[in-house]
Amino acid sequence: MDTDLIVSQLIEHFKEIVPLQDADIGCITAKLEIIQLKKKDYLLRSGEVSRSMRFIAKGSLYAYHIDEKGKENTTQLGIENWWVNDLYSYLSEMPSSMFIQANEDTTILQISKTNLEVLYREVPAISEFWRLKIQSAYVTLQERTFEHSRVDAYTKYRNFVSTYRNIEQRFPQYMIASYLGITVEYLSYLRKKHLSDVS
Amino acid sequence: MDTDLIVSQLIEHFKEIVPLQDADIGCITAKLEIIQLKKKDYLLRSGEVSRSMRFIAKGSLYAYHIDEKGKENTTQLGIENWWVNDLYSYLSEMPSSMFIQANEDTTILQISKTNLEVLYREVPAISEFWRLKIQSAYVTLQERTFEHSRVDAYTKYRNFVSTYRNIEQRFPQYMIASYLGITVEYLSYLRKKHLSDVS
Repeated sequence: MDTDLIVSQLIEHFKEIVPLQDADIGCITAKLEIIQLKKKDYLLRSGEVSRSMRFIAKGSLYAYHIDEKGKENTTQLGIENWWVNDLYSYLSEMPSSMFIQANEDTTILQISKTNLEVLYREVPAISEFWRLKIQSAYVTLQERTFEHSRVDAYTKYRNFVSTYRNIEQRFPQYMIASYLGITVEYLSYLRKKHLSDVS
Repeated sequence: MDTDLIVSQLIEHFKEIVPLQDADIGCITAKLEIIQLKKKDYLLRSGEVSRSMRFIAKGSLYAYHIDEKGKENTTQLGIENWWVNDLYSYLSEMPSSMFIQANEDTTILQISKTNLEVLYREVPAISEFWRLKIQSAYVTLQERTFEHSRVDAYTKYRNFVSTYRNIEQRFPQYMIASYLGITVEYLSYLRKKHLSDVS
């Protein structure tokens, strides 16, 4: 594993959104931690408080909660260059009701809340970066809440395909069906319909 | 109306959260606009895109949407030193499904999205301020979504009283009942129960 390469990947990710100076990069790098997960390892378990922001350097993860009937409901899927977290638990410091698990061997770069609070003061661009990220998360949360009650399954599927480009092949079908709130059979039907509609 | 006093009120509000220099205050002040509303005037109507952040300098407002049955559902109440907006419409630039209306004669300080984007670059502390505000809004949105399905009405009422201190007397009872998703009669029952529990 090339640590420098992984850190550069995150720095480039920040620089796509906000400008950073060399001194800023030093401040950021000093606060990062690398985590290696094997397939099926947990990044977060229900009942724990999320105390770090996590960036996927390599691999993929999925988040789910278990409902009253014991059924897993997928709530997030993430691949390289995505952030994965229970943002509610991180911000509120309340125990998470989610599990986050590795879908394959995965490398995570994480920054603890304590370090991130220091970094906000040292590098205001990082505060700006997170303002923009949390704005997007707010919009997504509102749309997911709203969409789940109003939008038909085909529209949901098309939105999913355009938002999560190239992600569909990397996760088990039951997980994607669960994320969309439909059965595997119906997912297969929607995929065929979509392929014939766009061809 | 004393414009300087109203502007100082907002500056003090910012300074409770982030440090500001004299030069910053000049940048902020140059971008503000004062709006006077009479009781029942609209700050935002359903179908419009919210293009400003709005701070209540004096007075109070309420936000609601109208459901399929034509019923008003109160979604926000705001008094002095609160921000009132359809944050989803502001961030996504999609038409609002909300109305925001003055509950009494009200003075608003507003800053347009265009001006705020400039201000984020001129005064990074303002970006930091909004990161913190939007973090809180994210937590509130998640809790409201979650709470509406899980929490009993009495817990909702107690949360409301502790979050919105001193607000209960300033709005019509039907509006508070609608905000909590209960009837006016049931609100009256919960209020009596709460008064006897805390006394």
